[in-house]
Amino acid sequence: MLTGVIAGAVFTSPAVGSILAAIRAVAQAGTVGTLLIVKNYTGDRLNFGLAREQARAEGIPVEMVVIGDDSAFTVLKKAGRRGLCGTVLIHKKLIPSLPSTHSWYSDSFPPGAYLCVGAGGRCPGRGRCGAGGDHKSGTLGVSLASCSVPGSKPTFELSADEVELGLGIHGEAGVRRIKMATADKIVAIMLDHMTNSSNVSHVPVQSGSSVVLMVNNLGGLSFLELGIIADAAVRSLEGRGVKIARALVGTFMSALEMPGISLTLLLVDEPLLKLIDADTTASAWPNMAKVSVTGRTWIRAAPTEPLEAPDSTATGGTDSKQMVLVLERVCTTLLGLEEHLNALDRAAGDGDCGTTHSRAARAIQGWLKEGQPPASPAQLLSKLSLLLLEKMGGSSGALYGLFLTAAAQPLKAKTDLPAWSAAMDAGLEAMQKYGKAAPGDRTMLDSLWAAGQELQAWKSPGANLFQILTKAVKSAEAAAEATRNMEAGAGRASYISSARLDQPDPGAVAAAAILRAILEALQGQGA
Amino acid sequence: MLTGVIAGAVFTSPAVGSILAAIRAVAQAGTVGTLLIVKNYTGDRLNFGLAREQARAEGIPVEMVVIGDDSAFTVLKKAGRRGLCGTVLIHKKLIPSLPSTHSWYSDSFPPGAYLCVGAGGRCPGRGRCGAGGDHKSGTLGVSLASCSVPGSKPTFELSADEVELGLGIHGEAGVRRIKMATADKIVAIMLDHMTNSSNVSHVPVQSGSSVVLMVNNLGGLSFLELGIIADAAVRSLEGRGVKIARALVGTFMSALEMPGISLTLLLVDEPLLKLIDADTTASAWPNMAKVSVTGRTWIRAAPTEPLEAPDSTATGGTDSKQMVLVLERVCTTLLGLEEHLNALDRAAGDGDCGTTHSRAARAIQGWLKEGQPPASPAQLLSKLSLLLLEKMGGSSGALYGLFLTAAAQPLKAKTDLPAWSAAMDAGLEAMQKYGKAAPGDRTMLDSLWAAGQELQAWKSPGANLFQILTKAVKSAEAAAEATRNMEAGAGRASYISSARLDQPDPGAVAAAAILRAILEALQGQGA
Repeated sequence: MLTGVIAGAVFTSPAVGSILAAIRAVAQAGTVGTLLIVKNYTGDRLNFGLAREQARAEGIPVEMVVIGDDSAFTVLKKAGRRGLCGTVLIHKKLIPSLPSTHSWYSDSFPPGAYLCVGAGGRCPGRGRCGAGGDHKSGTLGVSLASCSVPGSKPTFELSADEVELGLGIHGEAGVRRIKMATADKIVAIMLDHMTNSSNVSHVPVQSGSSVVLMVNNLGGLSFLELGIIADAAVRSLEGRGVKIARALVGTFMSALEMPGISLTLLLVDEPLLKLIDADTTASAWPNMAKVSVTGRTWIRAAPTEPLEAPDSTATGGTDSKQMVLVLERVCTTLLGLEEHLNALDRAAGDGDCGTTHSRAARAIQGWLKEGQPPASPAQLLSKLSLLLLEKMGGSSGALYGLFLTAAAQPLKAKTDLPAWSAAMDAGLEAMQKYGKAAPGDRTMLDSLWAAGQELQAWKSPGANLFQILTKAVKSAEAAAEATRNMEAGAGRASYISSARLDQPDPGAVAAAAILRAILEALQGQGA
Repeated sequence: MLTGVIAGAVFTSPAVGSILAAIRAVAQAGTVGTLLIVKNYTGDRLNFGLAREQARAEGIPVEMVVIGDDSAFTVLKKAGRRGLCGTVLIHKKLIPSLPSTHSWYSDSFPPGAYLCVGAGGRCPGRGRCGAGGDHKSGTLGVSLASCSVPGSKPTFELSADEVELGLGIHGEAGVRRIKMATADKIVAIMLDHMTNSSNVSHVPVQSGSSVVLMVNNLGGLSFLELGIIADAAVRSLEGRGVKIARALVGTFMSALEMPGISLTLLLVDEPLLKLIDADTTASAWPNMAKVSVTGRTWIRAAPTEPLEAPDSTATGGTDSKQMVLVLERVCTTLLGLEEHLNALDRAAGDGDCGTTHSRAARAIQGWLKEGQPPASPAQLLSKLSLLLLEKMGGSSGALYGLFLTAAAQPLKAKTDLPAWSAAMDAGLEAMQKYGKAAPGDRTMLDSLWAAGQELQAWKSPGANLFQILTKAVKSAEAAAEATRNMEAGAGRASYISSARLDQPDPGAVAAAAILRAILEALQGQGA
């Protein structure tokens, strides 16, 4: 927002010569006058003042406003309130309010005008409180630790259960230390302090006031914590009946890497809000919505869950009973393999593959005991998916859940052999897509993929259920055995060198065993 | 930029149920379709994939794009490139490119399309690289330390001279550690790594390329350091012949409070730049200038110093000689007071008031030896001001510098007694204004102010020089003596309780002594 900025050493006022050079550069660019916006620190006041006097001696029109928005000091200090993050709001509101013609200079800043600010400071000699004056804002900072000037030690020390309140922006210690507390508690202490009318530097915010709230990262606080503080500040202010017209959350005025925040409150009316909302080319100004924070609805009703679609593919009692028998056979098979699968997994992973599959089997057994499963295959697979997601856990649970969710879709319209083959295709596609494994990567996909290839034959007219399923199971078992010689391309085993992998992949073995259990259960029914 | 965001626990993928609820909420709000933008991590891929499959089972059109922009891994990883800060650019460029009508969905994202990204990943099964696909960006991070999940220890440990290269955004350790080096060196290592064509996940940036550069704060780095890195990155890229079309510097994708940065390079052409420049309501998007960084002129000539104005008030040889004698008398007076002033200052300050004034006196003596001072009073005071600022130092040097600079102004046009009285007024005003002291605050202003009041009489016609100046000196001495009973209101002594202050203020004593020296020198000349 500024035409020029003059940098000093870290936390040090710039030299008079640098300031004067900047004023000359701006003047020589053809401006009608220069306004210096200075935060209230002795060194800055003196050095900018000197540069101003020297520039004026050269005939350059220069005025100066000294900003003091600190609400930390409860008793009057001769030095006045320090300039803190509220200065950014002064930049924002002051600069668009300067007309671009010569008139701003003579009208708004009569020669010799010194614009003083801050309820706690007093207007010096011939100063006046003018356009830039601001008795209506206050800033207060807290931090969990100090900051360090590069190459130096921290400027103050805090123990882990202490919070520094009311600090400056150059690593100055604060006005008091408080005990570590929740964000809500700390924000309440801050707002109490900065709005308490017995504090000479308070900002007169009360119920019914309309404010701009700035939540400023002093440098090293995480965005997670910044968001928690912002939320606490909004709730606390609204709880006090204060209307938050705008809220700015970000890093606006930092103290190097200090892990803390400052809160700034600026009392606003409509004309002032227009200045805050005015367009600016400053890249650090947030892309802020020009609507009130208070009054917006933050909570919306949870979305409704869809009604279960009427089941057009619900098969009769026999088929449903058959599906129960298939599931029971799968469960007993997996429970019987628990130790074998764990042993295989110990060589390549964390040794819990059998445990994971047994957990799934017991979950299915428990579910079957609760009552008859859904009569439609699509619904059965969907329910199984949710069950495995919830109870099986791990990547296996997620991948089987994905497989079953996707496989259920083609079975919604039809449940004939082509539909079951399509279900296998859909399940395989989903498993590959989201799991990022391909056939040959030494995963459970190897067995399922081999079976899926054989089950393509179900799509041909007059295909034989058992003949093709038997071939698919054998193919799956061969694929599982073949993983013995594969390098792991995905999953946990991919971190192990292939030389150490001489056993088949337990996930592939389990998948093949599930397919055989399905075949045997169906055959046992003499279908 | 997004319609919805689904949060998980810190560094953990959100639950499938939460994702599904968000998809349902968006669908029930009346959208024509939902696009999930997912960073490439196994947990996210599986959970978002599951939610997508479940939503599709409910009849909600949902597509998914998985972003991988990590340039850390030099060899192919099955899991593909991780999603890092480049994802923010995908949000930015993908979202304004989605037409608001129904057609975007069917045109840009045919049902089943899976938009894969990342040069190092491979397109799974039926994926295709489409609108969201991005083989043209890369991101690499470095950090000086790890981050801590709230309540936990840091996720990795680094010694003070190490830098972690190529880390993830969830506290994952990087691909290698490098020795601490300058910002320029570290940025060069990063750019070499991420653009090296033998790195499978490199971004193919070379001389002549046009890029968007993102310099991203991983959370806890100070803005000072962020700016140094951004500067180094711009210079290093331009040194490689790369044109920086846009540069974004800020916190875009953080890893809690990690004190590090990531660099993202995105190869751009004009259509892509239009998407980057497109308006957005996202408050975190920087208020970025829509002009090229490369090609802008960063250096401008220093402003010219003004020529000395022709001296219309240059007094004759006698007056000039008189001024030299006055200055000499002031200097010997101050040198004689050194110990006395230091003793007074030891009671209230740091005991160097005499030393400071002696330093000024010796500087003036040295300057007078170099040749005849300017013949005009205004120029003399201006030169003295610069001399004191440079040589006297401290607040006293700044305040006397201010006094003299301001006092010089009324003497530019005239040098009669009313002009000298006005000079005193101007000096006093400047000293008060910038020093924030008022009469009665126990400072050097007390003496000067008292004298200034008497010197008002010079403004009357026919006023007597010596009669009035003598009164002024006596008044100044009385005022200096009166500071003995004053409470300090400004300056260093204001930190001392008044009970301990029973000596006059050394600054006030020195000022009164200077005035007496001037009087005596002038009288000695028999004027």
